[in-house]
Amino acid sequence: MKYGVAMFPSKELQDKANSLRKRYDPHYALIPPHITLKSPFEVEEDQVEDVISKIKEVAKSTEPVTIKVNKVGSFSPINSVIYFKVEPTDQVIDLYKKLHSDNLEGNEDYTFVPHVTIAQNLTDEEHSDVLGSLKMKDIHHEEVIDRFQILYQLENESWTVYETCHLEGNN
Amino acid sequence: MKYGVAMFPSKELQDKANSLRKRYDPHYALIPPHITLKSPFEVEEDQVEDVISKIKEVAKSTEPVTIKVNKVGSFSPINSVIYFKVEPTDQVIDLYKKLHSDNLEGNEDYTFVPHVTIAQNLTDEEHSDVLGSLKMKDIHHEEVIDRFQILYQLENESWTVYETCHLEGNN
Repeated sequence: MKYGVAMFPSKELQDKANSLRKRYDPHYALIPPHITLKSPFEVEEDQVEDVISKIKEVAKSTEPVTIKVNKVGSFSPINSVIYFKVEPTDQVIDLYKKLHSDNLEGNEDYTFVPHVTIAQNLTDEEHSDVLGSLKMKDIHHEEVIDRFQILYQLENESWTVYETCHLEGNN
Repeated sequence: MKYGVAMFPSKELQDKANSLRKRYDPHYALIPPHITLKSPFEVEEDQVEDVISKIKEVAKSTEPVTIKVNKVGSFSPINSVIYFKVEPTDQVIDLYKKLHSDNLEGNEDYTFVPHVTIAQNLTDEEHSDVLGSLKMKDIHHEEVIDRFQILYQLENESWTVYETCHLEGNN
């Protein structure tokens, strides 16, 4: 089964993201707005318990994370994803690293750029229009997130939450 | 903010439900297939912590629940909802009752009929066609569910999981 790890930001930021995703993100209906911490990875049935328990351990040893969003970014020219850029603070990067340490399978192909996707699969023209108009808007958001979710993917490519992991900060 | 409590059944049953919901349920994109345990209820910001903690207590004192689905049902003529009927075993009913005890606000308007919705907002003709063809199919499913989710609703009416509560059975 395919699993992933993500943080849902506050309702406020999710609503803001959805007002854009509704128009510009074909994945709008598959999962609420989120910050991916571990990209989809396949886990064999007999490994699930072990993997989940390792991920829970990461949460237990991690303090709640402050998330700062101050601009809109894009992965162009690699792809047309436009996103709320989450500042890559040490806290966020550390959490990501722990979720990709030796014990946890699934390495990433790209450098980690924490973000909330708001648009994707756009044509070049759409991408440039949408990015241009969003860059003009002021966005300043900061919040503390005290949990992340382990999710699994259904046949229709949507995601169901399996487990909520609290960032407990017990080192 | 509006909260709700629901159980997600196994991926297998969710996939089966989604193959029908895709065509027949306009709420398909708002939440994965689920068994509602507590209908949407409003919680004031300063009450959230208290309500969540009461719901968590319910989970802690409840054993994992066996879910049996043996037929397709409908709420017709009250509405056009068609669903996988979940047998109203003592376990399921007890869990529902605990989630509506004196301490937890939000009473229900109807008798509790545990179910997984697979179709709604159908015309009379659609309802009768869909129900007729589904009634012909054999459905026998049984599984143990060891958790439920507390969710909140976004502006676009979709649901985000806030907390996973494990049925720990510590009486």
